Amino acid sequence: MAAQEIPADELSARKGPLAGLLVVDLSRVLAGPYATMLLADLGARVVKVERPGRGDDSRAYGPFVDGESTYYQHVNRGKESVALDLAATADRAVLLRLIERADVLVENFRPGVMDRLGFGWEAMAARNPRLVYASVSGFGQTGPLRERPAYDAVVQSMSGIMAITGFADGAPTKPGIPIADLAGGMLTFGAVTAALVGRARTGRGCWVDVAMFDAALSLLENPALAVLAGQPAPARIGNAHYSIAPFDTYACADGPVTICAANDGFFRSLCATIGRPELAERPAYVDNAARDRHREVLRADLEVALRSRPAADWLVRLEAAGVPCAPITDVPGALASEQTAVRNMVITAGDYRLPGTPMKFSAYPDPETRPVAPALDADGDRIRAEFSAG
Amino acid sequence: MAAQEIPADELSARKGPLAGLLVVDLSRVLAGPYATMLLADLGARVVKVERPGRGDDSRAYGPFVDGESTYYQHVNRGKESVALDLAATADRAVLLRLIERADVLVENFRPGVMDRLGFGWEAMAARNPRLVYASVSGFGQTGPLRERPAYDAVVQSMSGIMAITGFADGAPTKPGIPIADLAGGMLTFGAVTAALVGRARTGRGCWVDVAMFDAALSLLENPALAVLAGQPAPARIGNAHYSIAPFDTYACADGPVTICAANDGFFRSLCATIGRPELAERPAYVDNAARDRHREVLRADLEVALRSRPAADWLVRLEAAGVPCAPITDVPGALASEQTAVRNMVITAGDYRLPGTPMKFSAYPDPETRPVAPALDADGDRIRAEFSAG
Repeated sequence: MAAQEIPADELSARKGPLAGLLVVDLSRVLAGPYATMLLADLGARVVKVERPGRGDDSRAYGPFVDGESTYYQHVNRGKESVALDLAATADRAVLLRLIERADVLVENFRPGVMDRLGFGWEAMAARNPRLVYASVSGFGQTGPLRERPAYDAVVQSMSGIMAITGFADGAPTKPGIPIADLAGGMLTFGAVTAALVGRARTGRGCWVDVAMFDAALSLLENPALAVLAGQPAPARIGNAHYSIAPFDTYACADGPVTICAANDGFFRSLCATIGRPELAERPAYVDNAARDRHREVLRADLEVALRSRPAADWLVRLEAAGVPCAPITDVPGALASEQTAVRNMVITAGDYRLPGTPMKFSAYPDPETRPVAPALDADGDRIRAEFSAG
Repeated sequence: MAAQEIPADELSARKGPLAGLLVVDLSRVLAGPYATMLLADLGARVVKVERPGRGDDSRAYGPFVDGESTYYQHVNRGKESVALDLAATADRAVLLRLIERADVLVENFRPGVMDRLGFGWEAMAARNPRLVYASVSGFGQTGPLRERPAYDAVVQSMSGIMAITGFADGAPTKPGIPIADLAGGMLTFGAVTAALVGRARTGRGCWVDVAMFDAALSLLENPALAVLAGQPAPARIGNAHYSIAPFDTYACADGPVTICAANDGFFRSLCATIGRPELAERPAYVDNAARDRHREVLRADLEVALRSRPAADWLVRLEAAGVPCAPITDVPGALASEQTAVRNMVITAGDYRLPGTPMKFSAYPDPETRPVAPALDADGDRIRAEFSAG
């Protein structure tokens, strides 16, 4: 095994809780790469194995900067790339050696594909019993839907999430973020690190099976709990809360604000702030249960007052009165906020500006700059040498 | 230290990758408890510290079964409860001993509260240098918004998620799941286990700082990347994909279906299946870039055909043709599906039916039954004895 030279700036970027771990990343597009992005952000060495020629499909996905996919840049920053033809003997040998020496493997092929390629869990565990082998898929490794194509939209559609998003008089609505993909990715990240904790005790890895569908079901919360308790399927309730009022978006002169007056004290402050203190005395609004029953009349009462001023005015007054409230900020506004800057939630990788790492650790740096995502096979020669036979 | 007796069924439920770890859980309501639910599901011993009298606020949140909150049951299953008055000397001593012997502490008070209570990170790390101390909050431990009240709706509102959810001609829309809370919870879980991996190397714990706001920003994907690349703020695009067409919900005779014809082959199969093979030959639809430019005309063309049959009919035909598609399933349908059953994604805890664990490990059981969430102070006597002085 030849000694390996890693540039100093790359090494320093690897100072995280997962420093020293080797991850073989066979995943593509989003759920798997988001999981391995988190592993890389926290210091693991992630070797991304791509097919020769085109590499990961997401290299062709926008948004683009100077012809480069920032979609790819975001979730592959700080990784190394090697292009391997999994049908070619020499390349298969490199992958096998990588897996034999790896702590973690992450893949998101359809169930069964890794077995057919000859790199399935059982075969790899026989060669490397310490390997944590993580498979993230749309519907999991088991069940009648296991081979169904796993687009985020398909999973969101079938999980109930779209049925409960939107307004009662409107259409089922897909959240604007690919939450099935990303919840699958976040849980794969956590499951891998949990399995590494278990390995420290038992000396053995295991097969981690995360389904975007399972993840989505786990997030349904109130509507799922109601159904499992034998209650009717919940309707779409727009931006409201299932059991608290006022807790919704409300129209001001120029647009909506979010107001969350979750208890009697907040409600009294809200009524006083909008110049309607007598509302808090009405029997129909005496406590949350009463307000919840009368939520539509309550909305009308509040909006009569709120429509007299623009949202920004009300936010200043409501904040001063301590009433939980929020503007509906657009994406440029959210990314440009001072909070975002202080939290280091916009970082750079080369010439690209990307979302930062959503976990901060007192013992480890949270760099403002991450290494760019690799060009296809950028690290190929070095990795082939490092993981050659003998 | 007295020997502790744990019922056998409870012990067996603790066989997971995190078995042997002690977690002190000072968190309330959702983001923190969801994180510690995942830790408990994977075998950690989680001692939930609640205030005497009412306990966690979420004990009063619906849905209810026989007067018990299933909201509380879901995210607190398998935990132990001790009621401690953090202003009382004897109770403070119990908590201190718990923290001294714990591997992990999770809290979601507003930033600064734990310090004021005398249990802040620095003081606790001085007593237990191996402690992983996790704080999950709305906006994080730093920045101008750090003390802002952290309802999920506030964070979603300010993160851009609502601005990009919904239809172009409709209102900003909150996803039907509390994704800021739950993404914060999932990342706290993963950050804690990652910090435990780091501790195995360094021997020291650290302070983990997870913000629901940071989590939300990390999930914005395409719209954030476009804005950071200097492009305009993306509009709300309903259920469509930013750059692929047809990839949306489409109207059939009785309601919508989701169709994801993400490449030319799928598009040709789609056109043939709906009896319009000639559509695939039109120059306006020759490749994805062309289809994307003409997505509204394309929708009209597809829906003329799709409206001739009900959604269920089309789904059978599209599936047979291998075109990625999905029904828009409601929550009862999703929970009652065979896939859900095979994946063990509805479990029981006592008399309650709850969502299962969204991570499966070959080396550890995935029980169909979990211990119920504790009554307030149900384990108080045992925990006080175990963590008494001397």
